[in-house]
Amino acid sequence: MEVPPPLVLKRPLYVPSKTLMGPGPSNCSHRVLEAMSNPVLGHMHPECLQIMDEVKEGIKYIFQTLNDATMCISGAGHSGMEAALCNLIEDGDVVLMGITGVWGHRAGDMARRYGAEVHYVEASFGRALSLEEITFAFEAHRPRVFFIAQGDSSTGIIQQNIRELGELCRKYDCFLVVDTVASLGGAEFLMDEWKVDVAYTGSQKSLGGPAGITPISFSKRALTRIRKRKTKPKVYYFDILLIGQYWGCYGTPRIYHHTISSTLLYGLREALAHFCAVGLKAVVRRHQECSKRLQLGIEELGLEMFVQREDERLPTVNTIKVPFGVDWKKVAEYAMRKYSVEISGGLGPTVEHVFRIGLMGENATVERVDMVLSILNEAIQSSKLGIKTERSKI
Amino acid sequence: MEVPPPLVLKRPLYVPSKTLMGPGPSNCSHRVLEAMSNPVLGHMHPECLQIMDEVKEGIKYIFQTLNDATMCISGAGHSGMEAALCNLIEDGDVVLMGITGVWGHRAGDMARRYGAEVHYVEASFGRALSLEEITFAFEAHRPRVFFIAQGDSSTGIIQQNIRELGELCRKYDCFLVVDTVASLGGAEFLMDEWKVDVAYTGSQKSLGGPAGITPISFSKRALTRIRKRKTKPKVYYFDILLIGQYWGCYGTPRIYHHTISSTLLYGLREALAHFCAVGLKAVVRRHQECSKRLQLGIEELGLEMFVQREDERLPTVNTIKVPFGVDWKKVAEYAMRKYSVEISGGLGPTVEHVFRIGLMGENATVERVDMVLSILNEAIQSSKLGIKTERSKI
Repeated sequence: MEVPPPLVLKRPLYVPSKTLMGPGPSNCSHRVLEAMSNPVLGHMHPECLQIMDEVKEGIKYIFQTLNDATMCISGAGHSGMEAALCNLIEDGDVVLMGITGVWGHRAGDMARRYGAEVHYVEASFGRALSLEEITFAFEAHRPRVFFIAQGDSSTGIIQQNIRELGELCRKYDCFLVVDTVASLGGAEFLMDEWKVDVAYTGSQKSLGGPAGITPISFSKRALTRIRKRKTKPKVYYFDILLIGQYWGCYGTPRIYHHTISSTLLYGLREALAHFCAVGLKAVVRRHQECSKRLQLGIEELGLEMFVQREDERLPTVNTIKVPFGVDWKKVAEYAMRKYSVEISGGLGPTVEHVFRIGLMGENATVERVDMVLSILNEAIQSSKLGIKTERSKI
Repeated sequence: MEVPPPLVLKRPLYVPSKTLMGPGPSNCSHRVLEAMSNPVLGHMHPECLQIMDEVKEGIKYIFQTLNDATMCISGAGHSGMEAALCNLIEDGDVVLMGITGVWGHRAGDMARRYGAEVHYVEASFGRALSLEEITFAFEAHRPRVFFIAQGDSSTGIIQQNIRELGELCRKYDCFLVVDTVASLGGAEFLMDEWKVDVAYTGSQKSLGGPAGITPISFSKRALTRIRKRKTKPKVYYFDILLIGQYWGCYGTPRIYHHTISSTLLYGLREALAHFCAVGLKAVVRRHQECSKRLQLGIEELGLEMFVQREDERLPTVNTIKVPFGVDWKKVAEYAMRKYSVEISGGLGPTVEHVFRIGLMGENATVERVDMVLSILNEAIQSSKLGIKTERSKI
């Protein structure tokens, strides 16, 4: 029996242009997209290694760290979460997950598979975790590793006390893992000053790079712990001692670990270059101003933010309560069909309850804020009236 | 202390054009490169899911399989090896690795981390494994999983008896994992007919796609075993039940698992479309003819192939003995400096012993074969004379 070539592959590739204002990915700039059509390079070619070095410097800047063990995992943002946990956890280690949405649960699922004893400390619905709540859980469980998302994209909550958590972890001889996938670029993050042991972020959010390559950094303290493991990390692909060797992090000769995607490196390099040119503080300021403007607009439309406390609102992924009697799905469909603009629904605990509007990278501009507000309003009104729209003929 | 933005990122991105005739990656076509500068899509957008469906059909064709559980891992070729082993292996499982170069050892390293009891069956230096050798090892170890690379890129050896190994594995109630990273497109591979349980391949070799996204397929038999596991696979990121759900493999609603790189999907889709348009048999024939032509040329130059038996030579990655008194490194450097052509040295057991010349995808043409032969000869002669060359001024 022979399997014939599929007919669908005779059709040309179809990729529509959309304005991605959901929780991510956000749009890439022309500079980033163009870079990715460059010819591929071998994974050990000096020009490729040079780009890796440049990317490494860029990551150190965005994380504000001098960590040698700064590199990328060749995988989606989730592979950053995997690598952080895989390298730190040994069988039976007690791990504590901070929960302000879905990502702490995801980390818990991963950690259990790696053989950890997993505990959770959960914030009240719609709130960040207080230092007191976390300290209480530390006292109860004495964790070896503590995980927290600086920004949880499912709820739009930002955890503002990372600096205090760094102190807490040192006091309890615990390692602090911070997921900055959704928050970086939208909030201050000072890895070294705050004593964070492992941080990773998404390339495809505020950075405006391509998905599939994940910046990560390990503190010297974390690295020492990893070098003293009794057993090898459970996954070769995520073994940070080997990956870091390939990335030239430890002053030893570079050794092939896997075939890196030069295409994604180009895209990430250009995204980082743009980010660095604008400057971290300016990027954060712009994201915060855009979010403030959106929040004001939401109020003016008579809508309500999901996160009650202003200082607990994540500027990058903004969550807005779905008004009573409105079908969020119809609203999202209207925005996409008529304007090719992505407005997203909730995720996990917020499904059906919120809209999620991403203001990240290319889409964190005053113009985009005003546009998305106007579209959101129109879509809600039309969904109330039950009006059906045709695709606009632009 | 503030970390300043790095100066290196103020320089423009530098990507030279090279002819990649090492063991991979090989060059991408313009069609593939152009596709990757398309705007990004969300990982749950219908147009993205449509492209994933098309990619899935293309993979079924290149593997010649009807397996539902056909998809991609979002990672390098190594992540395919990880996913195959991670899903099949439970603590204490006996695993047998066939060794014809380096990849069986790599798989052994991974499997041990997953808690397997690992055994090896090693071919004589420069030879493939015979059915007798493997059967002997099966009798001794009674493995639950058997791993073999159809083509080992470190030695340039092809394993021609996969069909018999499929029978053998059924007889011993063992699962057959075949690494086709370096071989696919250069040799026949009939997943279903040969009763292969897991196969994966490299996107960046004969397929001519981008690195970083890895086609993989699981037989129904393998899937049944995985569904009956006593414990979850050790890695969430490689959990094929979850990834397959996202890829729409099991007839259940698609659920978000990770953020796939739409960029790499575009590139792979276009590579598969080209491959399907040419046709599997024609692709294989072309790769084999090119390798034959190279082998003839090598003989004419007074050089010798590393693999003695003609029927054990991998057509995609060709290994040539480094002549006595020649420094392989100087030869490779000459070819790169003067012609921007990659000729590679050995890997693992073949380091210092062989040149590796890849004839894959875009580079599997008569013209490229003749070009690389002429360059190889010139480079060897010049290295004998100790002539230093300047970069050509094209």
